[in-house]
Amino acid sequence: MLFDRITIIGLGLIGGSLARALKRAALCKSITGYGRREAALRQAVEIGVIDYYSLDAREAVADADLVVLATPLSTTETLMRTIADALKPECIITDVGSAKGVVVAAARKALADRLAYFVPAHPVAGTEKSGVEASFAELFEKHIVIITPLAETGRSARDRVAAMWRGVGASVVDLEIGHHDEVLAATSHLPHVLVYTLIDCLARMQDKEEIFAYAAGGFADFTRVASSSPEMWRDICLANGASLLAVLDNFEQHLNGVREAIADADGDSLMKIFSRAKQARDMYTKTRGR
Amino acid sequence: MLFDRITIIGLGLIGGSLARALKRAALCKSITGYGRREAALRQAVEIGVIDYYSLDAREAVADADLVVLATPLSTTETLMRTIADALKPECIITDVGSAKGVVVAAARKALADRLAYFVPAHPVAGTEKSGVEASFAELFEKHIVIITPLAETGRSARDRVAAMWRGVGASVVDLEIGHHDEVLAATSHLPHVLVYTLIDCLARMQDKEEIFAYAAGGFADFTRVASSSPEMWRDICLANGASLLAVLDNFEQHLNGVREAIADADGDSLMKIFSRAKQARDMYTKTRGR
Repeated sequence: MLFDRITIIGLGLIGGSLARALKRAALCKSITGYGRREAALRQAVEIGVIDYYSLDAREAVADADLVVLATPLSTTETLMRTIADALKPECIITDVGSAKGVVVAAARKALADRLAYFVPAHPVAGTEKSGVEASFAELFEKHIVIITPLAETGRSARDRVAAMWRGVGASVVDLEIGHHDEVLAATSHLPHVLVYTLIDCLARMQDKEEIFAYAAGGFADFTRVASSSPEMWRDICLANGASLLAVLDNFEQHLNGVREAIADADGDSLMKIFSRAKQARDMYTKTRGR
Repeated sequence: MLFDRITIIGLGLIGGSLARALKRAALCKSITGYGRREAALRQAVEIGVIDYYSLDAREAVADADLVVLATPLSTTETLMRTIADALKPECIITDVGSAKGVVVAAARKALADRLAYFVPAHPVAGTEKSGVEASFAELFEKHIVIITPLAETGRSARDRVAAMWRGVGASVVDLEIGHHDEVLAATSHLPHVLVYTLIDCLARMQDKEEIFAYAAGGFADFTRVASSSPEMWRDICLANGASLLAVLDNFEQHLNGVREAIADADGDSLMKIFSRAKQARDMYTKTRGR
């Protein structure tokens, strides 16, 4: 048994799926959930996703050997402050945030004397759906969990969190905190921003009904991420603003190049750009398929 | 039998799929294919996708009652000029181009005395794959085909082309030519440009291997369209440049607003934009599901 008692703060898609996966793999003796909606927590107990719940965060973590923070990023520091002195001395704390710089900064302030037990992590998994009702035990299978340890993070704490993620089917890699935030800004945060922006742009055009009516199948795939939780993505954009703006700059420069090629009817340049992109995308698909 | 002899110019994903669908629904007596690669044409005959082929476009269309142009847009006018006086007097000509303004302009030049028999059409269907080997008979089922008739297009010609598309499972709507090009620029051409641009941008970043290695599942969906044929999309961008640049302007204005909100840590604005986008996207999915 990897842990006796695990407390999950926030039973959304990620927290709920982790609870289900931990249960299925029998990686702990009991799971306590904390959240804002009592009805959802009670239901989670009834269907066996968790064993106990509390509407008081300090009470929820009091007996825990591991606490998993799985709420939107804007709540992280407040929650850390709330639970800090309610934790058992050797309780390990981890999180699932999509941006790590802000989480680490929050921990340095709110968990300053417990950093050996703090393991920042990011399961790179999800769907466009939200909430415990969308959670499922298989969510992390064959997905990557990125751990961004602090210099202070204890080896044992890091390894036990890594073992938990491996136990629910994920593979684990370590990345430097800032590097994580740059890479995720490029492949996840920027695409979300582009799609949210495009959909909002189209939805405000005069003939929006027609525009959406004649959209092809590719449009459904392209825009899927825009059905994700606006609250979560607002928080991610704010939390990873610097890296996101840097890659957005880079993208806009490239987009200006493409715009010029279209305006100049420069087919050779377009062909080069599109061919390079297709090659990179096909390579990505091939690598991913393995 | 809707047509006796149909000739399909260009046996790629669309042309090949139409041939398969016509065969399956028994909508014509025979199909002749024209293309550049003889091996592919011979194979198409062997597996029964078409009945005959020719490497000479004029020979291929000589007996046809319907000619379907299904090659990249940059080839349209030349092909029309090549076949124009080889056609039977009452042969109907249609196409499958993703931009209609250029096709109509080409027809006005190359098919000037046959406009009553010319029916510009656009099956809004496809996958990211190319070539006859990727074609399948079900491609058009439950998809929309947009017809953009000219003032000169004869009612009977339009109706017979519409009947063909309905016969292979599509629904048919008529749109004004310029309006088609604006709507498709917004929902299809701009998304392709954004994704091609993003992938090329990421592929040229220093740590590109890592960037793609840590991409989440949403990335595969978001970027699927970048595996499409670069040649086809170069032609579409050139063919529909004006509408594409107009919607790109609109998008870039919106993107600047989002950039400012991120730079100003303006969570309220981001929340509004993302929520509106999610609502529009969820509505689109719901409507599409019906």
